[in-house]
Amino acid sequence: MKIGMLIIGNELLQGKQSEANLQALGLFLRTYFQQVHRAQFAADSIEEIHQALAFLETHCQLIVVTGGLGPTPDDKTKEALASYFHKAIHFNPEALAVAQANYQQFERQLPAGHTYSSLPEGFKALPNPAGFAPGLWYDGGRTKLVALPGVPREFQAMLTHLPQLLQLEASQRFNLVTVKTKGVAEEKIFNELCPTLWQELETFGEVSSLPHMLSVDIGVKTLLAPEIIYQHIQQSPLAPYVWSYGQTTLEEAILQKAISSKLTVGFAESCTGGLCAHRMTGVPGASQSFWGSVVCYDNSVKQNILGVSPTTLAQFGAVSEACALEMARGARNALNVDVAIALTGIAGPGGGSPEKPVGTVWVGVSGEKKQQAYRYQFKGDRENLKQRFSQIGLFTLLDYLS
Amino acid sequence: MKIGMLIIGNELLQGKQSEANLQALGLFLRTYFQQVHRAQFAADSIEEIHQALAFLETHCQLIVVTGGLGPTPDDKTKEALASYFHKAIHFNPEALAVAQANYQQFERQLPAGHTYSSLPEGFKALPNPAGFAPGLWYDGGRTKLVALPGVPREFQAMLTHLPQLLQLEASQRFNLVTVKTKGVAEEKIFNELCPTLWQELETFGEVSSLPHMLSVDIGVKTLLAPEIIYQHIQQSPLAPYVWSYGQTTLEEAILQKAISSKLTVGFAESCTGGLCAHRMTGVPGASQSFWGSVVCYDNSVKQNILGVSPTTLAQFGAVSEACALEMARGARNALNVDVAIALTGIAGPGGGSPEKPVGTVWVGVSGEKKQQAYRYQFKGDRENLKQRFSQIGLFTLLDYLS
Repeated sequence: MKIGMLIIGNELLQGKQSEANLQALGLFLRTYFQQVHRAQFAADSIEEIHQALAFLETHCQLIVVTGGLGPTPDDKTKEALASYFHKAIHFNPEALAVAQANYQQFERQLPAGHTYSSLPEGFKALPNPAGFAPGLWYDGGRTKLVALPGVPREFQAMLTHLPQLLQLEASQRFNLVTVKTKGVAEEKIFNELCPTLWQELETFGEVSSLPHMLSVDIGVKTLLAPEIIYQHIQQSPLAPYVWSYGQTTLEEAILQKAISSKLTVGFAESCTGGLCAHRMTGVPGASQSFWGSVVCYDNSVKQNILGVSPTTLAQFGAVSEACALEMARGARNALNVDVAIALTGIAGPGGGSPEKPVGTVWVGVSGEKKQQAYRYQFKGDRENLKQRFSQIGLFTLLDYLS
Repeated sequence: MKIGMLIIGNELLQGKQSEANLQALGLFLRTYFQQVHRAQFAADSIEEIHQALAFLETHCQLIVVTGGLGPTPDDKTKEALASYFHKAIHFNPEALAVAQANYQQFERQLPAGHTYSSLPEGFKALPNPAGFAPGLWYDGGRTKLVALPGVPREFQAMLTHLPQLLQLEASQRFNLVTVKTKGVAEEKIFNELCPTLWQELETFGEVSSLPHMLSVDIGVKTLLAPEIIYQHIQQSPLAPYVWSYGQTTLEEAILQKAISSKLTVGFAESCTGGLCAHRMTGVPGASQSFWGSVVCYDNSVKQNILGVSPTTLAQFGAVSEACALEMARGARNALNVDVAIALTGIAGPGGGSPEKPVGTVWVGVSGEKKQQAYRYQFKGDRENLKQRFSQIGLFTLLDYLS
């Protein structure tokens, strides 16, 4: 069964909102060893929805539609589906019951003037455990279609309808094996370090390479056990650059190492403005090792909470080796943790100088076995630099714990 | 000129990575009063790229392609474009020069075995100010095509080529007017509060409604001055719910109000884990009013830095009115700010109880004119709850400053 996705919404084409549901569907389907075969956007326009449906129907047997099911006049999905499949829209008592139940779960009444109780002939309403608008299901023989709300939280909650509707079964047939590297660029890996690695890995299965910030993930979709791929890479010149054999994220890797070595960790964040802490607390159970962070955006906070000396700030500035070291030491004390990482840099767009251009960052480490600071220089806009700064901060912490 | 977008990459269809370039293109084109007319994904497959190009060519005159221009064997975009337009791939000295310049800007040498110097006949190489791979430009008469790298930072940097290639001119013709509301659901606005508002606004232009977390944006694309739409809404029952007339974000609105009232602000963040601070520091110049945040994930940090009393924690727990109030007061002291907002709640998936289920949050405010705490209850997964908690924290701060 080939699966297509139709993503409906003017706001996505106009750049007002980012699209999140394709990734959610892709991740969900991986469990069932399915993937999205085609995906397409359409504006809230009946004609454009029809054209996209026609394209998807020629390539796919299931179409997952998202968006345009809400209560406002720019929501045209139901109408477009009805006319595409030549179905009249009728009152449907089951749809009314589903809509009522969706409202009842939030202790709300169906509003007057709602249209949830009319459905195209042959369509079924699907309960929405995270919102008001019901989803839609249509089995047209060759083509099956499920329409879900565009709000990512609701879309994700409603994906749980898919296995039953499609009789999907979680399969163990393929392994999606990932190895994560750092400190080496994608093209250096495949052109210089291991010029035959790609071809070698292809003997095991389908190979992919995915560059991230400061990191490259290499994937193999294979019928073999992951350990066979791991062993092959452990014997290659890439081995010293690998920081994760498997799907572990950087934040998870840090927490695993911190928990196993019984160390608590924390941050002093100036230029990352809390992003390191936000990332660490994205992992459930982070509280076992991550104790906190002092976001010291203003220099007075560096002094008052972290005890950075006014002389250091006056003599070297906040973006300096001395300040990074004092921040790390101060955070280790104030947060009462075993290891603290400090970040102080210039995320821009203003604040740069010839000696310390935008993108400069000092990363300080303070722990029993090391007191050190490192300088890095990155490119990018403010948001991108914050991400890079936090990434180098987390990698520095991982290195300390390793 | 209708603009289509082709987004290439297995990683996007497989859910390994989220898509960011459509939004970037959409936002960029708004300045020129253009928008993306059609958008479509394709796997790294020559056949699928061809099928998507054929669809886009029937509906659009310019196709913006992103992805698949890198150096690894799964990058098939150049090959697919050449065969789609029936062009042979030749050595191109200008492309070599562009690739060399791309590398030189990072003080790097073109690696051996690179293929950047061969291009399909009639294609031109475009300099990449943020990466190594050149972009491609092809003017085929009826169809024009520009291919840019998939890495969002590079894609965005290369969008600056578009105005010259396409002779776009920034126009003042349309105004995209936005009004942002909070505290009222989308369907309540249009079904109960102002049942005729949508039709009224349609007399000014094209209306849209975009629900966000705890907020609904209403947009009108119009030939009239924004003030006319603002006035109309100021006289409607929606007025008390509006927090921004214009494109101001929540973080920007807070900073504007804090700067104009000369107040400094900060946070004590437990359940949001630094997200409030991360969001505030996303705005350039945030340091004028935002001084810092104490991310107090472990209770010892609540005690040591914020001075929360052990009795409060023992008697009421960390997720309590008393603790939220003490955290806010403690942050106001420790950070030495005029207003502090404290967040303490349960983001899950663990840690909930019948009295304090996952999704419970207490928001404390401490400032000269108010010492108060509010309890809220949200639904969602961990990431979603962190976002909602931070949103209610920021709205609470905005309310204080208003």
